[in-house]
Amino acid sequence: MLGAIEAGGTKFVCAVGDMDFNVIELIEIPTTTPTKTMEKVQEFFQQFEIQALGVGLFGPADINPNSASYGCITTTPKVQWQHFNILSSLKEYLDVPIVFDTDVNIAALGEAEFGAAQDVDSCIYITIGTGIGVGAVNNGKMLHGISHPEMGHVTVRRHPDDHFEGGCLFHLDCLEGLASGPAIEKRWNQKAMLLEGRPQVWEIEGYYIAQALMTYILTLSPERIILGGGVMRQRQLLPVIYKHLQAMNNHYLVFPQLEDQMANYIVTPGIEGFSAIKGAFYLAKVELE
Amino acid sequence: MLGAIEAGGTKFVCAVGDMDFNVIELIEIPTTTPTKTMEKVQEFFQQFEIQALGVGLFGPADINPNSASYGCITTTPKVQWQHFNILSSLKEYLDVPIVFDTDVNIAALGEAEFGAAQDVDSCIYITIGTGIGVGAVNNGKMLHGISHPEMGHVTVRRHPDDHFEGGCLFHLDCLEGLASGPAIEKRWNQKAMLLEGRPQVWEIEGYYIAQALMTYILTLSPERIILGGGVMRQRQLLPVIYKHLQAMNNHYLVFPQLEDQMANYIVTPGIEGFSAIKGAFYLAKVELE
Ligand SMILES: Nc1ncnc2c1ncn2[C@@H]1O[C@H](COP(=O)(O)OP(=O)(O)O)[C@@H](O)[C@H]1O
Ligand SMILES: Nc1ncnc2c1ncn2[C@@H]1O[C@H](COP(=O)(O)OP(=O)(O)O)[C@@H](O)[C@H]1O
Ligand SMILES: [Zn+2]
Ligand SMILES: [Zn+2]
Repeated sequence: MLGAIEAGGTKFVCAVGDMDFNVIELIEIPTTTPTKTMEKVQEFFQQFEIQALGVGLFGPADINPNSASYGCITTTPKVQWQHFNILSSLKEYLDVPIVFDTDVNIAALGEAEFGAAQDVDSCIYITIGTGIGVGAVNNGKMLHGISHPEMGHVTVRRHPDDHFEGGCLFHLDCLEGLASGPAIEKRWNQKAMLLEGRPQVWEIEGYYIAQALMTYILTLSPERIILGGGVMRQRQLLPVIYKHLQAMNNHYLVFPQLEDQMANYIVTPGIEGFSAIKGAFYLAKVELE
Repeated sequence: MLGAIEAGGTKFVCAVGDMDFNVIELIEIPTTTPTKTMEKVQEFFQQFEIQALGVGLFGPADINPNSASYGCITTTPKVQWQHFNILSSLKEYLDVPIVFDTDVNIAALGEAEFGAAQDVDSCIYITIGTGIGVGAVNNGKMLHGISHPEMGHVTVRRHPDDHFEGGCLFHLDCLEGLASGPAIEKRWNQKAMLLEGRPQVWEIEGYYIAQALMTYILTLSPERIILGGGVMRQRQLLPVIYKHLQAMNNHYLVFPQLEDQMANYIVTPGIEGFSAIKGAFYLAKVELE
């Protein structure tokens, strides 16, 4: 049996699955304090006999296995979770291999193995929700360097009609500061899910997302781009993104993916809701082998 | 004996080396027409018995070995070189394995194996010259996706004192459009090498380069960044870049590389002038093994 945790800023999703990556049981636990949340996590996993556990962590997180703080959240606006060591907390009762990566790297892995990027060798997974995070997989490997990517905070140029100052605590008007769900809600003073009928909202949102995609394409040249997260429930965003991206590229990159095959290139998740959980199962199983 | 070509938009550098990657002979050939340039290349290589050849191509280029146009320059402002097939031209007289990548990917490989990034697992190499190009190596492998990265064209925000419209044929004021050597020369109406004594020139230049580095760091998280190319002969640019990068990061990424160890993180080439040639030797030798 395999275990998986998608440790997010809003909720922890915990699951157990069989060796063929089928979900057997799954639970959602709200992210409150480390003590309370981790207690519920323990209750869940103690019901089962798992052989390995994969964990996707909301970032920034320490995912370097050689580091003393491996398995820790590092800087986060959630003060109680700052420098909290999830690995030690899990090790207290789980005597199995435990592997960490970022939630989005693991979601990219899940999509690469079981979802919308099974037919290609590289992909990126972008979540546009409470924050904006990006994970990347290239030939079955998640992208790492000094640490994991933090592409949600790239620079974008401001839309001329946008007067919202931005909401990133570090950069004010980086991508996340301008295009996350909370940024949309502050700009328009309304819940994002209630803004569906206002095209200008999605015009500005699509303009920012397209700029970020252009940057990721120029930098990583991924073979598929998967857009997930709460904000992407607004499916009318996709054509807006395509339009701006095509205009920005201006036929510089001459791939069909950026011309008439864009709808097959920039897509929503193939296993929506399970990208990270299945990626975590996969990572756990690889660790066993 | 190993062969190497650094095929650039200004000149072709051809070299032969021994199996320990020492340069035995090297020649520079101006990039004029394909016929004239390739004739000189042939004259050079026909003097030697090489066993394999590594080629770094100025981009955009087709470096996908499975593609029909492998070894071709694709889109380039140099009209005569558009879609020119360098591989077929070389194959006419060289019956040895020939391997292609971009000039900057190969320079990154050279620096990773023999230069400023020998002690780390990942690096990027940026040339700031006639154009701006970026190559990346991660665990000994050059970065590929749909194609090679084209990071020289990322978006940057304009410096408030910069009134130059930008020189990129595709994007006008992308990074290359604002910060390449020719962009500097058009903005100030003076040769870049004669602008050393004017701090404002390098303040604006450093502001753009720092923005691009921030993007690359957020995206790839490389363990070392190497800055080469004609413009980087202005070594006073380095502290300007450090200053802006530190301000932009605003302690979001908490690596020492972005704090007090920046001078050891963002560096000039370890084997300046030979990064690509040695990278090409290395690639050729790997192909033989
Ligand atoms: N249907 C919707 N349409 C647009 N935005 C939505 C919708 N549902 C949620 N959101 C936005 O997405 C955010 C939550 O993102 P989500 O990806 O669901 O969770 P998280 O990022 O916390 O894991 C909310 O803050 C809200 O702004
Ligand atoms: N000493 C220098 N200081 C500043 N800029 C320079 C210097 N030398 C060359 N350059 C700039 O670099 C450009 C050439 O870049 P270089 O890297 O030497 O060649 P290329 O990019 O064509 O391979 C020139 O167009 C010029 O603008
Ligand atoms: Zn930010
Ligand atoms: Zn450009």
